[in-house]
Amino acid sequence: MKKILPKGFLASGIHCGLKKRKPDLALLYSKMGCKAAGIFTKNKVKAAPVLVSKAVLKQNKPIHAIITNSANANCCTGWYGPRDAKRMMHAVGKSLKIGFNNILVMSTGIIGKRLPIEKIENSVPKLVKTLSEKGLLSASKAILTTGKKPRVYTEKIVVRGKEIIITGFAKGAGMINPNMATMLAFLLTDARVDKSALKGALKEAADGTFNSITVDGDMSTNDSVILLANGSAGNRPIKKETKEYSVFLKALTHICEKLSQDIIKDGEGATKFVTVTVKSAATKKDACKVARSIANSPLVKTSIHGENPNWGRVASSVGASGAKSIAPNKIEVYLDEVCVFKNGKFTMPQGLKYARIYKKKNVSVMVNLNAGKEEATVFTCDLSKKYVEINARYS
Amino acid sequence: MKKILPKGFLASGIHCGLKKRKPDLALLYSKMGCKAAGIFTKNKVKAAPVLVSKAVLKQNKPIHAIITNSANANCCTGWYGPRDAKRMMHAVGKSLKIGFNNILVMSTGIIGKRLPIEKIENSVPKLVKTLSEKGLLSASKAILTTGKKPRVYTEKIVVRGKEIIITGFAKGAGMINPNMATMLAFLLTDARVDKSALKGALKEAADGTFNSITVDGDMSTNDSVILLANGSAGNRPIKKETKEYSVFLKALTHICEKLSQDIIKDGEGATKFVTVTVKSAATKKDACKVARSIANSPLVKTSIHGENPNWGRVASSVGASGAKSIAPNKIEVYLDEVCVFKNGKFTMPQGLKYARIYKKKNVSVMVNLNAGKEEATVFTCDLSKKYVEINARYS
Repeated sequence: MKKILPKGFLASGIHCGLKKRKPDLALLYSKMGCKAAGIFTKNKVKAAPVLVSKAVLKQNKPIHAIITNSANANCCTGWYGPRDAKRMMHAVGKSLKIGFNNILVMSTGIIGKRLPIEKIENSVPKLVKTLSEKGLLSASKAILTTGKKPRVYTEKIVVRGKEIIITGFAKGAGMINPNMATMLAFLLTDARVDKSALKGALKEAADGTFNSITVDGDMSTNDSVILLANGSAGNRPIKKETKEYSVFLKALTHICEKLSQDIIKDGEGATKFVTVTVKSAATKKDACKVARSIANSPLVKTSIHGENPNWGRVASSVGASGAKSIAPNKIEVYLDEVCVFKNGKFTMPQGLKYARIYKKKNVSVMVNLNAGKEEATVFTCDLSKKYVEINARYS
Repeated sequence: MKKILPKGFLASGIHCGLKKRKPDLALLYSKMGCKAAGIFTKNKVKAAPVLVSKAVLKQNKPIHAIITNSANANCCTGWYGPRDAKRMMHAVGKSLKIGFNNILVMSTGIIGKRLPIEKIENSVPKLVKTLSEKGLLSASKAILTTGKKPRVYTEKIVVRGKEIIITGFAKGAGMINPNMATMLAFLLTDARVDKSALKGALKEAADGTFNSITVDGDMSTNDSVILLANGSAGNRPIKKETKEYSVFLKALTHICEKLSQDIIKDGEGATKFVTVTVKSAATKKDACKVARSIANSPLVKTSIHGENPNWGRVASSVGASGAKSIAPNKIEVYLDEVCVFKNGKFTMPQGLKYARIYKKKNVSVMVNLNAGKEEATVFTCDLSKKYVEINARYS
């Protein structure tokens, strides 16, 4: 599927001087006001743009633009933080002749250094001037913090005869020391969607995707996922619990899946893509706790890196997860779909299969708790020497 | 202080064939029955000897012996597990002519492989025969799982004219893949101590020591700390809330401190000893959550490894800890006692000092939450490439 902006959206990405040479400032714009939904980091230390954008979204005004800078997170910058975030918005508002409450702002990059706000303000007129229907790639490049390629996906669906486009792009866990592993994701659609349907769809799509990935268990100060719908497709508004909603949700989820999996694959030093699934848990909370405990265990992650099928570490992670309903003798552990632990003890699989475990690029850990009906899936990567190297390096 | 067994204790350590050559079977014995207290792993997947020993302790019978094997954890071994643990105890009981309920059993080593119980049973008579007042070093060597040297400490105190000896030895996180990072610690004293004072002292001593260390956040299936007091010193029983109790507790805590710090220093690939302190938290729970979040953050640990004073990662770990009372603008971060974050932003310390942060072998991270009166300290190590290498290696 060709990667294009949905109807009515313009985008641009330029270099304003936060990075040495690469693009570092992005703008998304829709002349038609967008309905908007957002999901933000649960870290209690939130970057200024997260706080400011959350406040804007609460006002329920139509959103026309999102300005995003990379190379600086505008986080832990004291009272300058919100002031500088708002100055970014004011600059955009002035150039585009739109109100302050119709603009969102995002940042990603180094923590604790004041934003070079003049560089951004001086570049906004150019950023606005270069807005284009073909600006998608430029914008997606300008939000990156490391050299990894931009991740962009487009889906086309037809709702009651109207063609609808959904496009998403994201930046992931590629850190520049001493940055955080910030995830920023932008989802744009020309569909007309009811406000509550839009919020619901973003939540549903993010639950099994953006909210189910972990690189190292650390939660960033800037994580944000934004969904804008400008209604240019002219369809009858998509409402919850309709066939149209299902079709829209499916396409949106598909994009979120791709983007979130890319973020894992771009994880520092990652050599394996790991799917951790917990089945038959007593509660959803238990299922999530166990899945995250396994996915964030350095012992499990290093054993996967070393292609060492160590089910004992998985069993121990289950026990250490803090989940309430764990009966050790009921736990089953499957590595790459081979059952290696059952009835409280090691199960000897056929020799050949066991030797194949963890050899592929995509590996899986599945735990059946046999304690109920809930399940959870978390995606992660292995833990390599390269991860340590990247994150220990002096900036 | 010379490392000796307290009066009335004998010890031995021999090779029974679980390891290739090194000693792998240890016995502690006291003719006088001991009052005993124990602290065990909170992992829901508990090794068989943990379950069996907990059950013995519950009966409140005098304890005469502890048998411990290394190289095999007797964990995840199905119904063989408790049977083999009990067979170890029976063998000791038969040789020493003591009852089953007067014996504790411990194991550490590989998970999921049945214990070669005959090898142990066949060696118990020799183990009993070699019991000696000078057997402390042999026993402390026999509980190790890697080549690191045994860690033994002795403290002497005088209580109302009676000399009391406390001796402790432990094995730490040195894993042999695919083992767990099991911690076993043995604390022996010839003091006469009231049962409740003994339990209280172990809990108090362990709280700030064994319960405050973390290498990689993973909790083992076999972790156990046992305190035995045989009363040979003939002192008037030490009771809670007395001066004697304070003196005893201080000496016991001192040994636990030394042993737990050794465990961190022996952590795989550790190059730094890290003290994480959280001050002025609203609740004890918050203080512990924040301290553990920082201590287990791969980003913080790698930055310490790289001697990269990255306060942003510390601030983010505070926010991601799940602690309830976090006001980002009130947080202060001190790295090696230099305040680098205050009033919601980076504080520029004098150049020289900043460059010195994390350069020493012992480093510290201190966070003041300014939210209350509770505090917590956790000890950990850095995260190095060596850690990944050791734990990724195929066994």
